Amino acid sequence: MKATEITILEEVELENPIFIEALPGVGHVGKLVADHMIDELDATKFAEIYSPTFPPQVLVGEDGMIENMINELYYIRDLGEENQDIIIIGGNTQSLSPDGQYIVCSEILEFLEPFNISRIFTLGGVPTGQPIENPRVLGAASDEAHIELLKEVGVEMRSNDGGIVGASGLFLGLGMRKGIYGACLMGETPGYFIDAESAEGVLLKLAELLNFEINTEKLDERAEQTREMLAKAQQMEQDLINRANAGNADDLRYIG
Amino acid sequence: MKATEITILEEVELENPIFIEALPGVGHVGKLVADHMIDELDATKFAEIYSPTFPPQVLVGEDGMIENMINELYYIRDLGEENQDIIIIGGNTQSLSPDGQYIVCSEILEFLEPFNISRIFTLGGVPTGQPIENPRVLGAASDEAHIELLKEVGVEMRSNDGGIVGASGLFLGLGMRKGIYGACLMGETPGYFIDAESAEGVLLKLAELLNFEINTEKLDERAEQTREMLAKAQQMEQDLINRANAGNADDLRYIG
Amino acid sequence: MKATEITILEEVELENPIFIEALPGVGHVGKLVADHMIDELDATKFAEIYSPTFPPQVLVGEDGMIENMINELYYIRDLGEENQDIIIIGGNTQSLSPDGQYIVCSEILEFLEPFNISRIFTLGGVPTGQPIENPRVLGAASDEAHIELLKEVGVEMRSNDGGIVGASGLFLGLGMRKGIYGACLMGETPGYFIDAESAEGVLLKLAELLNFEINTEKLDERAEQTREMLAKAQQMEQDLINRANAGNADDLRYIG
Amino acid sequence: MKATEITILEEVELENPIFIEALPGVGHVGKLVADHMIDELDATKFAEIYSPTFPPQVLVGEDGMIENMINELYYIRDLGEENQDIIIIGGNTQSLSPDGQYIVCSEILEFLEPFNISRIFTLGGVPTGQPIENPRVLGAASDEAHIELLKEVGVEMRSNDGGIVGASGLFLGLGMRKGIYGACLMGETPGYFIDAESAEGVLLKLAELLNFEINTEKLDERAEQTREMLAKAQQMEQDLINRANAGNADDLRYIG
Repeated sequence: MKATEITILEEVELENPIFIEALPGVGHVGKLVADHMIDELDATKFAEIYSPTFPPQVLVGEDGMIENMINELYYIRDLGEENQDIIIIGGNTQSLSPDGQYIVCSEILEFLEPFNISRIFTLGGVPTGQPIENPRVLGAASDEAHIELLKEVGVEMRSNDGGIVGASGLFLGLGMRKGIYGACLMGETPGYFIDAESAEGVLLKLAELLNFEINTEKLDERAEQTREMLAKAQQMEQDLINRANAGNADDLRYIG
Repeated sequence: MKATEITILEEVELENPIFIEALPGVGHVGKLVADHMIDELDATKFAEIYSPTFPPQVLVGEDGMIENMINELYYIRDLGEENQDIIIIGGNTQSLSPDGQYIVCSEILEFLEPFNISRIFTLGGVPTGQPIENPRVLGAASDEAHIELLKEVGVEMRSNDGGIVGASGLFLGLGMRKGIYGACLMGETPGYFIDAESAEGVLLKLAELLNFEINTEKLDERAEQTREMLAKAQQMEQDLINRANAGNADDLRYIG
Repeated sequence: MKATEITILEEVELENPIFIEALPGVGHVGKLVADHMIDELDATKFAEIYSPTFPPQVLVGEDGMIENMINELYYIRDLGEENQDIIIIGGNTQSLSPDGQYIVCSEILEFLEPFNISRIFTLGGVPTGQPIENPRVLGAASDEAHIELLKEVGVEMRSNDGGIVGASGLFLGLGMRKGIYGACLMGETPGYFIDAESAEGVLLKLAELLNFEINTEKLDERAEQTREMLAKAQQMEQDLINRANAGNADDLRYIG
Repeated sequence: MKATEITILEEVELENPIFIEALPGVGHVGKLVADHMIDELDATKFAEIYSPTFPPQVLVGEDGMIENMINELYYIRDLGEENQDIIIIGGNTQSLSPDGQYIVCSEILEFLEPFNISRIFTLGGVPTGQPIENPRVLGAASDEAHIELLKEVGVEMRSNDGGIVGASGLFLGLGMRKGIYGACLMGETPGYFIDAESAEGVLLKLAELLNFEINTEKLDERAEQTREMLAKAQQMEQDLINRANAGNADDLRYIG
C-alpha cells in the first residue's frame, strides 16, 4: 500500500489552472467553501485520493451508509470573467501523522505537475477560541505579488503570527519550492463548530480575487444555522464557567 | 520484518466465502462473538497473522503461559441453510498505529483475494459510556442492498453518527474499493468491561442474516457474569461520584 | 540509516548459548542484574547495537562525558556447573516506538541465529505502584518445560495477568515463533526508583535455574541504598497525600 | 519524498571545518547564537535542508510572508586567530519525530563527510524551569580532550545529569561513532522565553574556545528585552500561584 493512492476518474486537460485547497480544518471553513463552490459552480470530480496516513476509520453518513476517508480533485472550466480553469481539492479528512501530511501534499503536487498549475490558494479558519462578532478574513502569501493582491481586496495580513498547520500551509510551502506561488485566506472562527459565516467571508474574498460571481444564498442558510449554534456555544461556555465555579471537584471526571 | 507476516497452516479452497471480522474492540463484543462461533461451529484455523504494528508485548495467559499478539484466520464450511462458506478473523489485538491499521487490513484483504470473498460483515461494540439496559444492535453498510438486509432483521441504522474506527471500519471501506460490499453490526455496550450480553445480540442478528443456528447457552453464562460485572460497574460509578463530591482534591492523583 | 546497526567488536563462537535479556525497564531491575553479572562474571562485550528507534538523545555520564544510547551484547563462557555459554544483552535504553521494539528485537534475534541459541531468559520488574516488603519473583514462560523449571525453584507464575511489555516480552514471543523457548523472571518493585533488592531476588533465581554461583555483595550494597530510597519514597508518598488533602487547588499545577 | 532533501546553493571547499549546531531548542539559546554569528561574521548560506519529519506547517513572518520549515548550512572562512573554517547549521525547526531526529542528523553528517569536519560544537539551553539570575554555561563532551578544553575556559561540566535531547545531543553522539569529537555548550535558561542573556553567555564561551572576537552589542539589546520579559514571566508565575491558591476549581479549564 503506497502513501497515496490516486484513482483517476477522468483524463482531463486544463489551461494553467489555479489550485484551490479546501480540506477540513479549523471550523470546517475551507471544507464549507469547497462544498459550496463544487455545488454552485458545477465542478466535476476527476480523481480520488486515498492514504494509509488518513484516520483509520470510515464515516457513517445518511441512513447508515459508509464512506471512506478521502480527498477528491474537482475541476471547473472557464470560471469568471477571466475564463480561468480551476482545480479544487476537497474531502472529509487530512493526514493524521505529521510526515503523512508532507508526503500526501507532496505526492498530490507531483500528480498535478502535468497541469502546470499557475497559482495556489489555500482556504481555512484561524481559531479565536471564543465567540466572535464580524469575523475578519486574514491572509498570508508566498510572494510579494500575492501579498499586494490580498491587500487590494481588503484582506488583513497576519504578521509574525505563528504557523499555518496542515494542508493549507504545506501546499503553499511545497509550491514555493517548485516556483508556484499563492496565498492563504483564513476566516476567523471560534473553532469549535462548523462555521458558515466565516466560510462566506472567505468565499467572497476568493471570488473578488479570482473575479467570479457566486450565489451565497445556501451558505447564508447555513450561516443562519451557524449563528444559532453560536448562541448555543455561548450558553455552553457560560454553563462550563458556572459549573467550574460551583466549587466542587465533580467536573474532574470530565478531564482527559 | 514486513508489515504483515502471514503463516499459512492449511491450504484451503472455499466457495465465495463471507468474511467476518471480529477482532477485539469496544467491550470486546466482536471478539466474544468470534470466540463463540469458532468454538460452537467447529471453525478450523488456517492462517496466523503477526505484525510489528501490533502492541509490542506478549500476554500472560493460564498458568503463566506466554501468548504472542496475533490475528488468526478460521474457516467454516457449509454453514446454515445456504451451505455458506465462512472466513472469520479473530485474535487478541489490532494494530496500534493508524497507518498500521490501514496496512494490515489492506494486506489481509490482498491475502484473501484468491478466495473471492462475496461479502464482508464486521462485528463490534458501540460505546454508550454508561450502563445500559436492553442494548440495541446498530448497523451501517457499504451499499443499499446491505442496508435493506439489516433493516429486514430489525437492525437500527446509525445515521450521520461519527465513524467506525479500526478494523471494523477499514475492512468495509477497503472492501468497497475492491467492489466487495457488506455491513457492520455494532452492539451497544457501556464499553468498560467484556460485554457478553451485547455480543449475544450481535451474534443473533448475524445468525438471522446468514440463516444459521447457534446455541448461545455458553454466551448466556458469560452474559450472566457480565450482568454481575454491570452491577459492580454501577457501584463503582456511584463510588466515583461520591468520592468526587466529597469535596477534597484527593482524587486528583488518579488523573492521567 | 537502517533500523538496527550492529557493530561486531569480536568474532566469537559459542556452544548453544543461553540468551539473557536484561535491558532497562520497570525499576531498572533487569539492567541491575545484567550490570552485576557482566562485572562479577567477567563478561566480554562482542557487539554494539544502535538504532534510530532509540530515544533521540545522548546521556551525560561521569564528569560530563557523553554516552550514546546503545544496546550491547556480552558473552560468558562455561558458566557454572554445566559449563554453559551465555549471551547477555544489556544497555541504557530500549526502542521508543512500538514497531521499533518489534523490529529491533527481531533483527537482534536474526543476528544471533548463527549462534544457535538454546533458551531465552528475560529479566525485568513488575510494578506494584507502591512500596512493598519482601518483593517476590514472578514468572511466565513460553512452554510447559520452562513453567515446570520455574516452579521447581519457587518462582510464582503470573496467571491471566496482563502483558509483558517491551524487550522482555518480545524476545520470548519472537523466540517462540523460531522454536526457541524460555522464561521471564520479574521482580516485584514499586517501579519508581532503581531497585537493587528486587534485582537481587531475580538474580538469585536465575543463578539457581542456571546452576551458577555469584557474589551478590555489591548488589547488597546497592540494595541498602535502595532501602534508604524506599524510606524516602514512602515519605514522599505521604507528603503527596498530605498536600492533596490540604484542600486547595495548589497541586493542580503539577498535573500533566 | 526522501527523509532529507538537501539543496546545494554553492559548491564550496573548506579546510577541516568545525561544525557548529545551533538549531532552535530550549529558550532558543542555540538559535540566537547562530543568528547572531551568521549576521556579525558574514556567514554565507550554501545549502538548504527540508524534511517531511519537520513540523507539517509553514510560518507566517513579516507582513504575512510565508516561510518553509527549514535547516540551513552556512560557512565562514578563516575565523579568528587560527583562520579556522566553520560550518554552522541553523534554521527554524528540528524534526518532530524521534526517529526523524536520528535520520536527519545522520543524513546531514553524511552530506558533510566530504568536508572532513575536524570537531563538532553543539549549542543549546538547559532548562531551569524558573527565573534564574546569572545563568551559567554548562558543558558536556564526547572525549577527554574537549572536557579539558571546556574546563580551561571555565565551563562547568554536567555530571550524571540526564540527557541532551535532539540535534545538540545527536550530532555529538553520531559524530563519536565516526571518530569526530566535540562538545556541547548549554546556557541555563528558564526555558519559557527567547533568552538572549543565556545565548550571550554561550556565545562568549564559544568565542573563547575558538579564539575569535565578536561584537555582542546587538545580543545585548536582545538581552535587555529578555530581562524585561523575565520580569513579566516572574509576574505571570506569581499570578498563577495566586490564582491557584484562590481555592476554587476555576483554573481547571486551563489544564491540558
